[in-house]
Amino acid sequence: MFKLIKQEGRARRGEYTTPHGVVQTPVFMNVGTQAAIKGGLSGVDLGEIGCQVELSNTYHLHVRPGDELIREMGGLHRFMRWDGPILTDSGGFQIFSLASLRKIKEEGVYFNSHVDGRHIFMGPEESMRIQANLGSDIAMAFDECVGIPAERPYVKASCDRTARWLRRCKDALYDYNSREDAVNPGQVLWGINQGAVFHDLRIEHMKKIADLDLPGYAIGGLAVGESTQEMYDTIQALEPFMPSDRPRYLMGVGTPCNILECVHRGVDFFDCVMPARNGRHGHLYTWDGVINIKNEKYARDESPVDPRCDCPVCRRYSRAYLRHLFKAEEILALRLSVMHNLFFYNSLTEKIRQSLDDGRFESFYRENAEKLDKRI
Amino acid sequence: MFKLIKQEGRARRGEYTTPHGVVQTPVFMNVGTQAAIKGGLSGVDLGEIGCQVELSNTYHLHVRPGDELIREMGGLHRFMRWDGPILTDSGGFQIFSLASLRKIKEEGVYFNSHVDGRHIFMGPEESMRIQANLGSDIAMAFDECVGIPAERPYVKASCDRTARWLRRCKDALYDYNSREDAVNPGQVLWGINQGAVFHDLRIEHMKKIADLDLPGYAIGGLAVGESTQEMYDTIQALEPFMPSDRPRYLMGVGTPCNILECVHRGVDFFDCVMPARNGRHGHLYTWDGVINIKNEKYARDESPVDPRCDCPVCRRYSRAYLRHLFKAEEILALRLSVMHNLFFYNSLTEKIRQSLDDGRFESFYRENAEKLDKRI
Repeated sequence: MFKLIKQEGRARRGEYTTPHGVVQTPVFMNVGTQAAIKGGLSGVDLGEIGCQVELSNTYHLHVRPGDELIREMGGLHRFMRWDGPILTDSGGFQIFSLASLRKIKEEGVYFNSHVDGRHIFMGPEESMRIQANLGSDIAMAFDECVGIPAERPYVKASCDRTARWLRRCKDALYDYNSREDAVNPGQVLWGINQGAVFHDLRIEHMKKIADLDLPGYAIGGLAVGESTQEMYDTIQALEPFMPSDRPRYLMGVGTPCNILECVHRGVDFFDCVMPARNGRHGHLYTWDGVINIKNEKYARDESPVDPRCDCPVCRRYSRAYLRHLFKAEEILALRLSVMHNLFFYNSLTEKIRQSLDDGRFESFYRENAEKLDKRI
Repeated sequence: MFKLIKQEGRARRGEYTTPHGVVQTPVFMNVGTQAAIKGGLSGVDLGEIGCQVELSNTYHLHVRPGDELIREMGGLHRFMRWDGPILTDSGGFQIFSLASLRKIKEEGVYFNSHVDGRHIFMGPEESMRIQANLGSDIAMAFDECVGIPAERPYVKASCDRTARWLRRCKDALYDYNSREDAVNPGQVLWGINQGAVFHDLRIEHMKKIADLDLPGYAIGGLAVGESTQEMYDTIQALEPFMPSDRPRYLMGVGTPCNILECVHRGVDFFDCVMPARNGRHGHLYTWDGVINIKNEKYARDESPVDPRCDCPVCRRYSRAYLRHLFKAEEILALRLSVMHNLFFYNSLTEKIRQSLDDGRFESFYRENAEKLDKRI
């Protein structure tokens, strides 16, 4: 399902086929945690800003409105009216970052909901059942995401358990999606590599999970406390052991510069809440760096956020108007800012793909990597 | 500029021409207080939901971002990127409902800003200067909006002052818009009738302001404490004294039923924050009455808010999804709800116009007036 079209150094240009369409990679997935994009963006908006893959969160949707309800409504695509590819995470990351009173056992994790405190158990089978109910195109493995710093013996034991869980995920998802009433019979499972910043544990774990011959592999458990350089080094050490004919997805990363650096190191899929969150705070991306639109100097600025940007916001509105919307605390401020920032990320990966197609990724990378994260 | 096309009883079908386009009446104006519609709707959305006139608030825009800034940015149309007709109120109503430490004098009103407490003076000339800076198509007279109940002697004195202020408004606006650098030289002034629920004072005031031969007249100071029946009776008593060749605008009113009742009594223009405010609370209009989308019974309801509604929300989303968005506290909930409710109001006045064109307003009115405000 993954077609590697071209390579430049370790950077890869590919195509990944899902039941809801073909994804051009490298790609940035747009996060709609609770089946909705933050800032009031609709599915129509997503289409307009060049979103290729929508990402929703298993844990959040299980808690509210409930995956059984979404199944009854025909699955997540139909429920939220987004007909393109959807990836769901496994709930693992949220259980480890949001839930309280967490107990990890071989069978899975016992914890309390962050919404109403009720007791929930989630293991590989539960995560797969929920994701099968949601009917996403790509389901992610249920794993333990270990925070960094972490003790080596703990990471080793956790990786072993995550590998055992992966086999159970594979069996369970196969079972659910073989049923006649499967929401999305074409749904597939991607594995997740863990191992904190211990390169040998990462590699050992990768070899184990590669044996399961899954259609995609993610790098999880990064950007959770280590330095950026440690993150890059870990990816670089791991990458040669990831199957080259499968897409690689770096979970929850990152800044525009992070994305360029990691494409440079062989990653194909990205997702991050950062562009939406920064947008809601008035931090807007431009091809010269990040501006704070609330700054006084934009009060009378008639130019768009970025004159080189072709997004629906830059085509229509001035910095002065956007700044006014923030100062007046209008919701439209959030919507326009999130729209611009997501477009910027989608457009960044589009330009990366274009540069790979043209065999000039290296120069694109060198020109842009440092400048894009700069606050100006 | 107003063309009366057809009449059925007192109900009128007309056309009002502004520098930014022709308005078909009866019409409901969509409120964008601070140069933005609540709920994150953009100018593009306004076009999609059939908005004919956008209404912004002089007082709010004077306080933030400042009318001088908007003038520098080319006026309100250009600032907010809405190319259709705009009406601005005079600031009077907000001064009397929002500001603190208010002192009314013959020259105008001294008060403190609700945002930062700073001292502001606004009189007829200031209101006209601000509205000329905004460059709206219709500027409203600066008046005192007296709350109800009110003592007759106070109302009488206030009406006399408001009438004196109106003459000053007319002179000032003429002066501003005759200048070479006028933002919108075609901007016109509408007068506002006051008089609380004293029919004779209303009529006396109306006769006085009719003498100024303005292109439109509003009924102000209603829906501020009196009963609905008192409001209807006041309009009915006043209407024969309003020039029949000028549009009549009932300020800040009201429910769908109020609108039907007042079209029935000869009103042409309406505005109200109610559809947007109710939308933000999940109260959605349908042709059978008002539903609360947060209600448990909609959790698994795959039908649109109103199957007979052709708005962008009803064409695309289910009640179940909308309810989920509210429960999950997603901003998209607000946007879709406000969009539906404004479309409903715009569509209500469209159907009223159609029924007038077809000579069947009476039956449309009798069929719908009571049912539309019912909570179901």
